[in-house]
Amino acid sequence: MTSYNTLAWDVDADGILVLTLNRPDQMNAFTVEMANELVDAFHRASEDDAVRAVIVTGAGRAFCAGMDLSVPGNVFGLDETQAPTLGDLHTRIDDPAIRDGVRDTGGRVTLAIYDCKKPVIAAINGAAVGIGATMTLAMDVRIASEKARIGFVFGKIGIVPEACSSWFLPRLVGMQQALEWVYSADILDPAEALRGGLLRSVHAPEALLDTARDLARKFTRHRSPVGVALARQMMWRNSAQPHPVEAHRVDTLAMFYTSIGDGKEGVRSFLEKREPAYAGKASEMPPFYPWWG
Amino acid sequence: MTSYNTLAWDVDADGILVLTLNRPDQMNAFTVEMANELVDAFHRASEDDAVRAVIVTGAGRAFCAGMDLSVPGNVFGLDETQAPTLGDLHTRIDDPAIRDGVRDTGGRVTLAIYDCKKPVIAAINGAAVGIGATMTLAMDVRIASEKARIGFVFGKIGIVPEACSSWFLPRLVGMQQALEWVYSADILDPAEALRGGLLRSVHAPEALLDTARDLARKFTRHRSPVGVALARQMMWRNSAQPHPVEAHRVDTLAMFYTSIGDGKEGVRSFLEKREPAYAGKASEMPPFYPWWG
Amino acid sequence: MTSYNTLAWDVDADGILVLTLNRPDQMNAFTVEMANELVDAFHRASEDDAVRAVIVTGAGRAFCAGMDLSVPGNVFGLDETQAPTLGDLHTRIDDPAIRDGVRDTGGRVTLAIYDCKKPVIAAINGAAVGIGATMTLAMDVRIASEKARIGFVFGKIGIVPEACSSWFLPRLVGMQQALEWVYSADILDPAEALRGGLLRSVHAPEALLDTARDLARKFTRHRSPVGVALARQMMWRNSAQPHPVEAHRVDTLAMFYTSIGDGKEGVRSFLEKREPAYAGKASEMPPFYPWWG
Repeated sequence: MTSYNTLAWDVDADGILVLTLNRPDQMNAFTVEMANELVDAFHRASEDDAVRAVIVTGAGRAFCAGMDLSVPGNVFGLDETQAPTLGDLHTRIDDPAIRDGVRDTGGRVTLAIYDCKKPVIAAINGAAVGIGATMTLAMDVRIASEKARIGFVFGKIGIVPEACSSWFLPRLVGMQQALEWVYSADILDPAEALRGGLLRSVHAPEALLDTARDLARKFTRHRSPVGVALARQMMWRNSAQPHPVEAHRVDTLAMFYTSIGDGKEGVRSFLEKREPAYAGKASEMPPFYPWWG
Repeated sequence: MTSYNTLAWDVDADGILVLTLNRPDQMNAFTVEMANELVDAFHRASEDDAVRAVIVTGAGRAFCAGMDLSVPGNVFGLDETQAPTLGDLHTRIDDPAIRDGVRDTGGRVTLAIYDCKKPVIAAINGAAVGIGATMTLAMDVRIASEKARIGFVFGKIGIVPEACSSWFLPRLVGMQQALEWVYSADILDPAEALRGGLLRSVHAPEALLDTARDLARKFTRHRSPVGVALARQMMWRNSAQPHPVEAHRVDTLAMFYTSIGDGKEGVRSFLEKREPAYAGKASEMPPFYPWWG
Repeated sequence: MTSYNTLAWDVDADGILVLTLNRPDQMNAFTVEMANELVDAFHRASEDDAVRAVIVTGAGRAFCAGMDLSVPGNVFGLDETQAPTLGDLHTRIDDPAIRDGVRDTGGRVTLAIYDCKKPVIAAINGAAVGIGATMTLAMDVRIASEKARIGFVFGKIGIVPEACSSWFLPRLVGMQQALEWVYSADILDPAEALRGGLLRSVHAPEALLDTARDLARKFTRHRSPVGVALARQMMWRNSAQPHPVEAHRVDTLAMFYTSIGDGKEGVRSFLEKREPAYAGKASEMPPFYPWWG
């Protein structure tokens, strides 16, 4: 039983988890509690073999209207005496005083999404503003309702894009588009976000969640959970390395272990023209995983 | 008072600096003097609080017709005995003998643009060829006149793309398009450059500078100069890191210092539904800036 | 004389090498022998001054139908006792036991393509599936016949995308598109692959090879072989560095050596309005090449 105050967690028979941002009366505005629950939920989704893919959407009219400025405990409650240094963020990043005290809460969420072993789909049903926009950048695919509105609006209140969006956004839409959206702080309609490459596709409101479920099912049905987890982490991590040989090292290990694992059943079922029945589990990855520090 | 031989420097009341390449009788062809003046101008623009954004354009018909091959003192005047090593460029890169003697002059300019704290817009009014094309790649947004012609023409004279263009161009237009433009050395018309993702938009000649000014104003009006400077440097630098946690470290510091700085006024003015009045200055950045080595 | 069992090697008078995957009765399916021959062929093409550009295509109806699962000796023949570690792939990557025993064969091919000094064009004439798709990602430009079908199908048999495709594919088509194609394992028609940015252009089957030859000729005719080799390696390598100053160091060396080399003839011929006659050879690169470890 998974119970959260700010989220709803629903897994169907196909292993599709719909994670709903669930403060509809506050337009699902983001709080420190929501950040902590999202980090927890993505860790669970990553390790729980009953979950094969994750869809994130919002309850009610909004997706997420940004940081809830009416709730204390976020970065606006801090003062100069609590200033961290870059050194603190290297050597003490998981020290509770740093982690819970000053680390950007949005970034704690996007880093948890980044580490997830399951495909993640954003189903943007309405306003996605500030952290509501940037949290979707660490997801694999973004689809939106015709009613969605997306804004990287930080500049309007004298702060900066966060949640690692300076890492994610340029690699999704290119630097020129990313900078214009950040500088202008405009609210984008779905057509503009689609044209700019941020969205995969735009849908009628009533079709949004079904489309997300269809994609999630397509990404995971008759798939090895180990193979999918490796593919996700390889794509995100290897592509950011300075030389393709870094991918080659990981490819070699991943091909080796899948070929003596679920790949055997994969090839057999392919040759026998039947659906595969994989034994592997994302909760039990090959010994080289995680391959990073 | 800012006076250059090869540039015109004009700042308006909104802090929009128009930096005009100003050798119209030579199609604004690039010289070592122009390189040095551009480096100086971008350092000044970065530190001068009266400047909020930079527009670069050309006087007369051309934007910049490439290196002026008729003026001595550039790389074509050197010989084998002056050959630097890769080691020199690591350990003595700012040694005057290396800096002024052999370092690629175009790269000295694009690195100065890269370091700038203000948004930079290229308003390409005419021919932008060789260094005239590559210098624009370090700018944030490129708009062009219908009369613009853009060419990465180095291959036509047996040399190589410079000014860090091998770093910038693939991340702006993708590797496939970048390689074709470099290999072919074609002169691109604005439609092709727009389609390939190099340009943001194309305009009638008489509308070009007004469009650039409108964008520059939009990017800086009612904005914290500190927030804009941080956003620019975060986007360019963090996106090139091998892991999003590097962005997260910087995000944490940038969110912390803006939230106890201009962000307080930003939130207050937002809640009070009035325009913000920011006290921060780009010449006085938070203590963690610059965060790089 | 260059003779291969699985490849045809044909160089024309313009130095355009057509490398044909040549197992038409097996849809040019990929074997360990083909991998070794491709590695050898790309090394030769790189060093042979009679070769100016490389086109890769397939004999018969297919481009390459993926790994030949009927031929022993590939990764599916290995077992747990031969498991390499990440350490092995750092310290012993060229040890024959590792290189020929467990290293991903597709990656050995794409790394050889990556190191090549000549422009490489994929002319995808038919089915390009699995390694048939991923091997093209390290090529500079991909054109396809209307009959081409492209699929990153690894997920269908419980294995992972290989051949460094997790490094190449996201930087060619963006992360969102790359992940959808890898998760879905769909067979793409040419229109979809073109729209997604994977292909440069699509052609009638009978026009494919001529188009490839025209491009190859355009990329190399009246060009310095040294300049082209430097440009190719600079674009691929510099763009993946974490800071543009890394490009600047290489630019400085490349501009220096081309300016005292083929660049002198390039400028002279340009000023004299005649075609250049370059003396440089790709087999004799400037002393700083290769500049990497």
